[in-house]
Amino acid sequence: MTDSLVLSIDGMGGDDAPDIVVEGVDIAAKRSTDTRYLIHGDAARIEALLARYPSAKAATRVAPAEKAIGMEVKASQALRQGKGSSLWNAIEAVEKGEANAVVSAGNTGAFMAISLFRFRAMEGVHRPALTTRWPSIKGGYTVILDVGANVEADNEQLVEFAIMGEAFARAVSNIARPSVGLLNVGSEEQKGHEEIRAAAALIRQADFDMDFRGFVEGDDIAKGTVDVVVTDGFTGNIALKTGEGTARLVAHYLRDALTGSLLGRLGALIAYPALRRLRRRMDPGTFNGAVFLGLNGLAVKSHGSADGHGFAAAIDVATLLARSHYREEIASNLARLAAAEAAGAKVGEAG
Amino acid sequence: MTDSLVLSIDGMGGDDAPDIVVEGVDIAAKRSTDTRYLIHGDAARIEALLARYPSAKAATRVAPAEKAIGMEVKASQALRQGKGSSLWNAIEAVEKGEANAVVSAGNTGAFMAISLFRFRAMEGVHRPALTTRWPSIKGGYTVILDVGANVEADNEQLVEFAIMGEAFARAVSNIARPSVGLLNVGSEEQKGHEEIRAAAALIRQADFDMDFRGFVEGDDIAKGTVDVVVTDGFTGNIALKTGEGTARLVAHYLRDALTGSLLGRLGALIAYPALRRLRRRMDPGTFNGAVFLGLNGLAVKSHGSADGHGFAAAIDVATLLARSHYREEIASNLARLAAAEAAGAKVGEAG
Repeated sequence: MTDSLVLSIDGMGGDDAPDIVVEGVDIAAKRSTDTRYLIHGDAARIEALLARYPSAKAATRVAPAEKAIGMEVKASQALRQGKGSSLWNAIEAVEKGEANAVVSAGNTGAFMAISLFRFRAMEGVHRPALTTRWPSIKGGYTVILDVGANVEADNEQLVEFAIMGEAFARAVSNIARPSVGLLNVGSEEQKGHEEIRAAAALIRQADFDMDFRGFVEGDDIAKGTVDVVVTDGFTGNIALKTGEGTARLVAHYLRDALTGSLLGRLGALIAYPALRRLRRRMDPGTFNGAVFLGLNGLAVKSHGSADGHGFAAAIDVATLLARSHYREEIASNLARLAAAEAAGAKVGEAG
Repeated sequence: MTDSLVLSIDGMGGDDAPDIVVEGVDIAAKRSTDTRYLIHGDAARIEALLARYPSAKAATRVAPAEKAIGMEVKASQALRQGKGSSLWNAIEAVEKGEANAVVSAGNTGAFMAISLFRFRAMEGVHRPALTTRWPSIKGGYTVILDVGANVEADNEQLVEFAIMGEAFARAVSNIARPSVGLLNVGSEEQKGHEEIRAAAALIRQADFDMDFRGFVEGDDIAKGTVDVVVTDGFTGNIALKTGEGTARLVAHYLRDALTGSLLGRLGALIAYPALRRLRRRMDPGTFNGAVFLGLNGLAVKSHGSADGHGFAAAIDVATLLARSHYREEIASNLARLAAAEAAGAKVGEAG
């Protein structure tokens, strides 16, 4: 591996792969000229696309893969039969040290299963977590995890998520000391179930130097009350999908209002540039790139329906993380967590 | 009690009480002329307001209450010290048979605690649940419960929520056979945690004559995929608050887009009637009225920040439920649930 970054790309993952993948690499290659790309997949199709994208072509090597894992394949099946696929090979290239991170817009379940199987969880991480970003009224975004890797999380796992999310926010948002909140049904200390109250106590007890703000509520995600919102994968997945559904509902109402009358249509025509800007801000692609955090390898998942710009955003996340010290930061806070737990256990014995 | 409906109203609950309460009663009184209202609270203030609202005045009797429970009072404190308050008396009037239902825009925790204490849970209901409605793209709304009465729910409680939510939807939405889904992280049968899979199995096993559609995801709430979405109070509360936060975020983006440029402002001016219609559709007051389901008394909670129209919407929910057979329907399905569980236990013993 040279000094420049190498990203291993699943060329065949995503609804419109390989087209959006090569387009995304082209956009990213223009932004960051010292990154190299290793695109795995159908070599003939990918080379044909590269011929149309000179910036991508100049920075890319194609690694032929004989098959692709479909979006409907179950994780267990992908693990058994996925060897030799573009996704599998893309992950393996990172494992072998040929690349710094893998990016795929493919099957999420397969991506998580194969990443976990090949990379393994970092020492001290019980459950890697899927981490993503949600736009906030403050103009930036809120990091949220877990958004679906695990359906349950105990207090210790929630604290691990807090550690991982904080390091992620520092790497990707360029905030020196990101604030962290635990998602709950109220901000008062006595609220919520036992696991979450125990997690809050454990964070306060451990010597993390973390800007921990206690409990936050669902509407704090879009408000941007804290930089990092921590929750279990069941709640996180459902909350964000409810948010997505609501955003689509409001967009539908807006379309309805602006096409339902002559004045509405005329106004929309005149305000067209402003409405186009609104559409771009609401485009989930802007914040594309979920990271499966807590593995020994860096695994970034693009939304399956991403376009080229969305895929490039996922590449940006991989680049920022690969150039950061997120893994060392996580390891050092995990050691502090272990120390706090050992001290807690001693207190327990003494009592 | 006469044949006409009597609603017991907490005159002092809500951010802008008693004003919005009397205004709401006036709006409702014009819609439904055979309902009578018993408004509890500061008699002088309420009488002064009634003088300005003749329709409300004609249908209302004021029951003086010496105090009011503030929005910041904890549920436990409200239980200890709430006797004689407008909320307490409003609930008690239903318990004594003087009214058919209670409506309050006051402190949610106090409302649930005092309702549960005075009304008690229906026979067979382990945990009453807070039930609300969310607008859907289909044009109607989705009933969702529990949205915060309990932080956890086991499989049996989830099934009870399904029974209660289905009866609620039939009463309020006028759908003969509402479809029901369990909120999960995927629609496949093997998804989610054990409780939710056990709940799905139990619903299928019981003889409910319920249109049960299995698992639904967060975005199905706004899509209107099913009429009733069932979840635990932790997930439900966080999901809806995330949705609310997102709706506010999109509205903020829209305002930004339409005020950020001259063409945007001009377009918005021309499309003003259409945008006002949009604003009305997005107004949470349209679907105001959360019901604390599963009690022996009918308890409807208006949003604390509701205006008169919002409060009237909550009164409408109380009226529809009071005129329906929702309690008998719940009781009959609870009996079927008990039978299914007894049969399951027998199978368990035999195995």
